Amino acid sequence: MTSVLVLGAAGMVGRKLTERLVQQPRLRGADISKLSLVDVIMPQAPADPSFAVEMEAGDFSSPGMAERLISERPDVIFHLAAIVSGEAEADYDKGYTINLDGTRKLFEAIRHAGDHYRPRVVFTSSIAVFGAPFPDTIPDDFHLTPLTSYGTQKAIGEMLLSDLTRRGILDGVGIRLPTIVVRPGKPNKAASSFFSGIIREPLNGEEAVLPVGEDVLHWMASPRAAVGFLIHAAELDGNAIGARRNLTMPGLAVSVAEELETLRRIGGEARLRLIRHEPDETIAGIVAGWPRRFDTARAEGLGFTADASFEAIVRAYIEDEGIAL
Amino acid sequence: MTSVLVLGAAGMVGRKLTERLVQQPRLRGADISKLSLVDVIMPQAPADPSFAVEMEAGDFSSPGMAERLISERPDVIFHLAAIVSGEAEADYDKGYTINLDGTRKLFEAIRHAGDHYRPRVVFTSSIAVFGAPFPDTIPDDFHLTPLTSYGTQKAIGEMLLSDLTRRGILDGVGIRLPTIVVRPGKPNKAASSFFSGIIREPLNGEEAVLPVGEDVLHWMASPRAAVGFLIHAAELDGNAIGARRNLTMPGLAVSVAEELETLRRIGGEARLRLIRHEPDETIAGIVAGWPRRFDTARAEGLGFTADASFEAIVRAYIEDEGIAL
Repeated sequence: MTSVLVLGAAGMVGRKLTERLVQQPRLRGADISKLSLVDVIMPQAPADPSFAVEMEAGDFSSPGMAERLISERPDVIFHLAAIVSGEAEADYDKGYTINLDGTRKLFEAIRHAGDHYRPRVVFTSSIAVFGAPFPDTIPDDFHLTPLTSYGTQKAIGEMLLSDLTRRGILDGVGIRLPTIVVRPGKPNKAASSFFSGIIREPLNGEEAVLPVGEDVLHWMASPRAAVGFLIHAAELDGNAIGARRNLTMPGLAVSVAEELETLRRIGGEARLRLIRHEPDETIAGIVAGWPRRFDTARAEGLGFTADASFEAIVRAYIEDEGIAL
Repeated sequence: MTSVLVLGAAGMVGRKLTERLVQQPRLRGADISKLSLVDVIMPQAPADPSFAVEMEAGDFSSPGMAERLISERPDVIFHLAAIVSGEAEADYDKGYTINLDGTRKLFEAIRHAGDHYRPRVVFTSSIAVFGAPFPDTIPDDFHLTPLTSYGTQKAIGEMLLSDLTRRGILDGVGIRLPTIVVRPGKPNKAASSFFSGIIREPLNGEEAVLPVGEDVLHWMASPRAAVGFLIHAAELDGNAIGARRNLTMPGLAVSVAEELETLRRIGGEARLRLIRHEPDETIAGIVAGWPRRFDTARAEGLGFTADASFEAIVRAYIEDEGIAL
């Protein structure tokens, strides 16, 4: 029997992961016995789980909370909780308190649990650990030079994860997720929001603003692929990974032009006409500083799989979200 | 007038730095007005300083100490204080408390000082931020994959230094020092001790044990070069460095064979015969996991200079320590 704790369960990836665990209630070769869902807002209860589900609203970095969560000895911990990039940049204290101190408290609670407790910890990192200037294709051994506090905090989390794994305190796997496209729901204030918006809004019959040129290239994976990465990271043989516990996940380097062509092919000319080209130099500037393409040989060698194509990403979105064309 | 704080002033590099500041009492284009020397053991008073010197024994990670040191608004902070590699590995809490939490407290004290205080912080990092497997020559953009808690803590310090510099909280330069050879004094328990010992002991007419083969290659700099790196890092124009604030210092990739040949040339055959070959598989194994050679184009482009040759390293040692041949 495998017990599972998800920190950050109310976010988009957390909800998709929960759905997947309910649909396929096995992990690490055993049935899931219990799923604990934690977030700052109360996570939604999944429908018809075959295992016990507990939900809790709370800040895992608050005093005593990590110890209490760990006292139940979950076999697998998905650590998805984070203050996102924009907020961590705007609020120095909040970002460092949650993303760095919170992560450290979690790891320390595991260290002090005793009884040879050594859970698999899947830590979601980000390609924000990398900062420009970049080579055309970023190799697996490229240095971490984050240009945001969020990226810095994720990079530090990676370092702690590796060291505590090496010391036998936990059994960690860090996965650097690409930008998730197509995100369901509404546009948000992230500078990357339009990569999803220019597909999602037209498929809903709504206008979408494109603030950058069509030659812009970006590193993407679907929510379905992201959940696949998380599950695979939970299942993976730790010995196969070796000392370097943090892996850049495979993705697709997709241009805006390819996105638009895919929208036209799947949604038709009428939907393509819902794109409004409104160049925004601020957004274009931010996006220009982002990595565009990775060589993810290590992750692929360990069995992580990218989406087959951008068309497959859009078709998965349509299927998963029940979009009527 | 420039005021200077040295954390870790009682260590070998801290003492050499103090001597140099007394001999050349200018920094960043101004006379040194005051030098504060801090370490867990009381630093020695330098002879005949032309400026005020304060000495203090204390742990900079203890409550309130960083705030108090920062309240005097030193213009330049040399942060050399650290629990060394072996001890940080043996004592998890001590290593993380001093090397990570202590460094964070120092940076937070600077952040909360107010009044647009923004000192130059020279942080001594280490090539221990890198972990095997390595390419033959490690480039400036090679990833940080430390294989010790000490290396992890130094890598995290580098990340914090970069982020706080980017945010305008401090003006940091991190320098990754090579192994310092020839260390004056006695052999110590560091696995790297013999690299100095096989020169230092024979020059003193004493036997030295060589635990590895003569083909072993290692990345070295003299104490004189290390002090030069510190001074240059304090003087350097921050704008010239750019966003990547941490630099691998230039050094020499020296083989044990070259060390022995240099000993013979400078000290004569009799001294070479004081080397006892006693292969030690444990030490050989540790040393095999260390980096051997770096491409330090970035640091060289910024004006950091390595020793001219291993012979120059030995001659500097003889001169600086007043060794009679």
